[in-house]
Amino acid sequence: MALKSDYATQECSIARTLEVIGERWTLLLLRDCFLGLRRFSDFQRHLGIPKAVLTARLETLVEAGVLERHEYRAGRHEYLVSEKGLDLWPALHALNRWGNENLSPDGPRSYYLHAECGSLLEAGGFCAKCRRLPGPAEVEYRPGPGRARKPGPPEPVEQALRNGHRLLEPLVLD
Amino acid sequence: MALKSDYATQECSIARTLEVIGERWTLLLLRDCFLGLRRFSDFQRHLGIPKAVLTARLETLVEAGVLERHEYRAGRHEYLVSEKGLDLWPALHALNRWGNENLSPDGPRSYYLHAECGSLLEAGGFCAKCRRLPGPAEVEYRPGPGRARKPGPPEPVEQALRNGHRLLEPLVLD
Repeated sequence: MALKSDYATQECSIARTLEVIGERWTLLLLRDCFLGLRRFSDFQRHLGIPKAVLTARLETLVEAGVLERHEYRAGRHEYLVSEKGLDLWPALHALNRWGNENLSPDGPRSYYLHAECGSLLEAGGFCAKCRRLPGPAEVEYRPGPGRARKPGPPEPVEQALRNGHRLLEPLVLD
Repeated sequence: MALKSDYATQECSIARTLEVIGERWTLLLLRDCFLGLRRFSDFQRHLGIPKAVLTARLETLVEAGVLERHEYRAGRHEYLVSEKGLDLWPALHALNRWGNENLSPDGPRSYYLHAECGSLLEAGGFCAKCRRLPGPAEVEYRPGPGRARKPGPPEPVEQALRNGHRLLEPLVLD
């Protein structure tokens, strides 16, 4: 893959990582992939971004080997997080945790638990009870009290996540 | 602080975090702060970005309480990572680690060690030997073999870091 040179002067692995996942919306798209969304139309509905932007972001992630594109039915594709993409879990968890701790006056917007033991993950995605770092497939998402209650019917992804959800398992939308 | 609404439709702590640190260059500026750079002119020289961009990024981080601006001599200021900013260490480490593992065919560009025991930090910034997550002030940076050797004299920050450096300690440039 030809890396773009947004940070060409920076001889640094953070800069290299940002060349792949630092564009606007990419990290939120990856969050949706970890939450179990897989299809273009679902990403588009949840993120509410122009189709051209979503297409470009998905292409970058597939080219970089972070997502894999599969045909699940003739002419229909879905996007799954690759092994390489799964390694981004500690970064996503860390960014989420920081927002919950510092920018959520009404309490966390989300919880991530080690499903096996039920403990909340700590900094770094670490399970203090089991003294190890569970992979994302071992993690359960639960909505937190800091989520704003919007008027009107809940948004489909919100609705599907309301009782918690194991990361990476397909999220079935109503 | 009035949050910008780049991701206004996204009720999510990752989105909120990105409102603060997701702008172009901000994470690399933070990386420099963790490495011990503190002054406007040093950031500017190392990042090579326009002064107006650097000024705007520093203002955002100070407003968000991630950096603290101190007068170290009449009319001269430096920027230090706040307690809230220190909590971003797991995110920076995770982004760096992913780049080293996935985008550095010539080996890691950098190493981060738990200074006390000398172990390389693992995923999540975890020290497997001590079975805990060292804070950034306990971490030592060392340059890795994946750094490209550029022709000509080394860049000042590169030069100051060549023998390793404890994070957050002031970096003295030649």
